[in-house]
Amino acid sequence: MTTATKENKIINGVNVTKLEETIQTVRKQPEVAEFKFRAKNKWIDGGENKIEVGDFYGACQEHTRKKPFTFTADEPPVLLGKDQGANPVEYVLAALSGCMTTTIAYHAALQGVEIGGIESDYEGDLDLKGLLGVDPKARKGYKEIRVRFKVKTEAEREKIVELAKNSPVFDVITNPTPIKIVVEKE
Amino acid sequence: MTTATKENKIINGVNVTKLEETIQTVRKQPEVAEFKFRAKNKWIDGGENKIEVGDFYGACQEHTRKKPFTFTADEPPVLLGKDQGANPVEYVLAALSGCMTTTIAYHAALQGVEIGGIESDYEGDLDLKGLLGVDPKARKGYKEIRVRFKVKTEAEREKIVELAKNSPVFDVITNPTPIKIVVEKE
Repeated sequence: MTTATKENKIINGVNVTKLEETIQTVRKQPEVAEFKFRAKNKWIDGGENKIEVGDFYGACQEHTRKKPFTFTADEPPVLLGKDQGANPVEYVLAALSGCMTTTIAYHAALQGVEIGGIESDYEGDLDLKGLLGVDPKARKGYKEIRVRFKVKTEAEREKIVELAKNSPVFDVITNPTPIKIVVEKE
Repeated sequence: MTTATKENKIINGVNVTKLEETIQTVRKQPEVAEFKFRAKNKWIDGGENKIEVGDFYGACQEHTRKKPFTFTADEPPVLLGKDQGANPVEYVLAALSGCMTTTIAYHAALQGVEIGGIESDYEGDLDLKGLLGVDPKARKGYKEIRVRFKVKTEAEREKIVELAKNSPVFDVITNPTPIKIVVEKE
């Protein structure tokens, strides 16, 4: 639904006027576009650990949430955990789902494409022979992830796929992203 | 801490006896290692969406949790959202943190390496010029992710890095993982 207040055009719940202003600002001041997102983790025991997501940096300043978002990761009993939370590879699918969905809504809004609803399902194939060291040819991560969207829109299906592929998490998963690790001992 | 009951050796909270049995089972019946993890997403509005993680397939059978794990993804106000939940690229760091932590605990246990504590911090650099289409050379996802571990252990730091790199989510992020997208219109 498109609505317009005195100053702002809203499409798909996205303030397109502000989004376009942001893009103009970034063109003039590229440093506004530099963001740093963060998480902290504390191991509990076995497969269980606690995650906090709070502050981040962006638009040339630090941002602090009043209260961090907290998550529990664990493994199900079949993977020798206590199932206190989704497991880490399930969190990857959660991240991908949130990112592709939001990217469709925002990019459609920028192009004036109205979206009435988005539902989606994700499935990833994991061969534990890689992680367990049983087969050196099996990779440790997902072999493949499949995504099925149901979208209420007048846009073509190809357009929705094109919009979804702008997703940062889609990029992180389909392309190599470097990770640097430092270990301190206590 | 290593403890032993009559039948099971526990290291780092991981039942090493059962883990070794699992590895032996997988060597004999490779199909036991095939897992399929899943997530569902429903868009609310703008940058907000709801995620469910429930059933999965593994060890030759379907597994259903009594109640699915649910998550909210959103964007902070500076990214035109209402901050109802962590944002999708923050969920990626959460996934990575859970996976590297659990992988250290499990793989250390398998090697008889005792771990007294693991804390870790994650930071990823995201240049919005990619997502916003302002700079075609800027990638849409993270340019780099940095991880800092603090680990209580007698093992060498290099050993901890080596263990952490077995993580499936580390593999998914550092190497290309194919994603297939299907769109249905309602």
